[in-house]
Amino acid sequence: MNLVNHCFRLASRPVGLPKRSDWTFSAEPVGEPGAGELLVKVLYVSLDPAMRGWMNEGKSYIPPVEIGAVMRAGGVGRVIASQHPGFAPGDHVAGAFGVQELAISNGTGIVKVDPALAPLPVYLGALGPPGMTAYFGLLDVGRPAAGQTVVVSGAAGAVGMVVGQIAKLQGCRAVGIAGGAEKCSYLVQELGLDAAIDYKSEDVKTALRERCPQGIDVYFDNVGGDILDAALTRLARGARVVICGAVSQYNRTAPVQGPANYLALLVQRASMTGMVVFDYAGRYPEATRAIAGWIAAGKLKTREQVVEGIETFPDSLLKLFRGENIGKLVLAVAQEGAA
Amino acid sequence: MNLVNHCFRLASRPVGLPKRSDWTFSAEPVGEPGAGELLVKVLYVSLDPAMRGWMNEGKSYIPPVEIGAVMRAGGVGRVIASQHPGFAPGDHVAGAFGVQELAISNGTGIVKVDPALAPLPVYLGALGPPGMTAYFGLLDVGRPAAGQTVVVSGAAGAVGMVVGQIAKLQGCRAVGIAGGAEKCSYLVQELGLDAAIDYKSEDVKTALRERCPQGIDVYFDNVGGDILDAALTRLARGARVVICGAVSQYNRTAPVQGPANYLALLVQRASMTGMVVFDYAGRYPEATRAIAGWIAAGKLKTREQVVEGIETFPDSLLKLFRGENIGKLVLAVAQEGAA
Repeated sequence: MNLVNHCFRLASRPVGLPKRSDWTFSAEPVGEPGAGELLVKVLYVSLDPAMRGWMNEGKSYIPPVEIGAVMRAGGVGRVIASQHPGFAPGDHVAGAFGVQELAISNGTGIVKVDPALAPLPVYLGALGPPGMTAYFGLLDVGRPAAGQTVVVSGAAGAVGMVVGQIAKLQGCRAVGIAGGAEKCSYLVQELGLDAAIDYKSEDVKTALRERCPQGIDVYFDNVGGDILDAALTRLARGARVVICGAVSQYNRTAPVQGPANYLALLVQRASMTGMVVFDYAGRYPEATRAIAGWIAAGKLKTREQVVEGIETFPDSLLKLFRGENIGKLVLAVAQEGAA
Repeated sequence: MNLVNHCFRLASRPVGLPKRSDWTFSAEPVGEPGAGELLVKVLYVSLDPAMRGWMNEGKSYIPPVEIGAVMRAGGVGRVIASQHPGFAPGDHVAGAFGVQELAISNGTGIVKVDPALAPLPVYLGALGPPGMTAYFGLLDVGRPAAGQTVVVSGAAGAVGMVVGQIAKLQGCRAVGIAGGAEKCSYLVQELGLDAAIDYKSEDVKTALRERCPQGIDVYFDNVGGDILDAALTRLARGARVVICGAVSQYNRTAPVQGPANYLALLVQRASMTGMVVFDYAGRYPEATRAIAGWIAAGKLKTREQVVEGIETFPDSLLKLFRGENIGKLVLAVAQEGAA
């Protein structure tokens, strides 16, 4: 094999929104996999808001991507060569392959996926980390009871769309916050949520008062900022706030906007708890079984938005921060049939 | 009886620090207690930061004091007349008697206290609501394990001084944050805390890094603002932040300062939970037994700072917001022997 890999390497730590020059896009030769290694042809790369955080220096829940390293990203692909006993050429696999066409791996953190069970991009969405995040964040951290009100922000995104649907499956009243009429219509008409709030055209605080007459029992936050603050004003007694992310804050050059209404936690004896999906890795099979079952039964809908071409990565990533995606945003890197 | 009651009634809702003209101080005749009522001669009035919040309009964990009503306050006193079957003249009682000399009550929320067991002001401190708050807030909400690090702000105040000592009794490393060398010396020399941080002369973030080398497992927050933000930077994995109060914020005319570092909750899989002591009323006997036992065994020290004269109330209250008190601040209203 004389393969060439196109990859994005981190060139500088962005200030504000990342721009193309924060990475280098290069063509590099790839060798054979060594003993215990496998070579993966990446088919789809996952685009996630969390990637912005990985580009920053400093301590977080995961080490930053080093300058010069291939940009970290989840992906699905096909094994094209293997000296690893657990994987054979032709296997489909998911893992943190990075923003590149070809990845050599020692198998750590890689799982086989079945394209007959679900289209490959679904393994980056409802059957991948976003689905796991929604499942454990809502059920383990949020702990909603039937009849309670669950509000989720970023409701039409990869995590939020699963949260809202699982909330409905638990017998909850589910209210989604999203930007724009198309997303809001999708939440109610397609996903069956009880109500949606368009933060671009409505006052969120007023809308929450109207659409959550009993208050909010579980607030699943993907966005932070003003929407988190609005949700805090409507907490019910004993409410649980799940801090999953804060996409409104990741590209700020000013300090993060802290939730000024945090004393609602005291008034309502409520809690705010952060979660990182990796902590639940040992229980992914449980969530995968549940979500796959709901999908098979027609009770949970998946949706992916596929952008073509690895070279579009820097611009495609920005769709997340501009709120341009509905469902899971993925980058198609190669055709399934290609060598 | 032809008794005259001096009392403070709320006259206006303060903007910023309360001032004397926010209350009226009047002399009013008091009648006999009716059937089922008792008349209490108030001996000590409790001064609490929470009183500032009760003066504001709007929804909170307790209704606001109405304009024209006697200012709400806890107190201890002696029954001087009773038509209530549960109380007899001479009984010492604690309850929400208000900022006044004489209170007529139907007995709701009033408990008998024993001046032979502890000096009466202690029933407003370690054996009163502050002690209950410390006990349940730390043990039930904070859930520290032996060997873990507990940090408490407002550490030399009525709640904080009990939190720090109970943390030590649980086998924790206890670090107190307070303002000034005298308070910090008191925390370490008198109360036996492992370390203190003087927020007036030290950078709290730097000091926390130094004095909490393993991070903070439980942060018990009485103050909010910059100190809460500094504590968030030092949370250990799975830390619990107990939101008990936010004395730094109560007199702000600007919006509350939200914790800009709240995403540390996500990074550290930590939680922030609000608590209101009233929720534990059914378990006060448990806490009272424990705290009284520690006091009797010489394992928990109490301290009260007594200011003389009901007429000093408006100025004495401000001591709390100026950080001028060590231990529980109480107002002495009458001598025990007086009619």
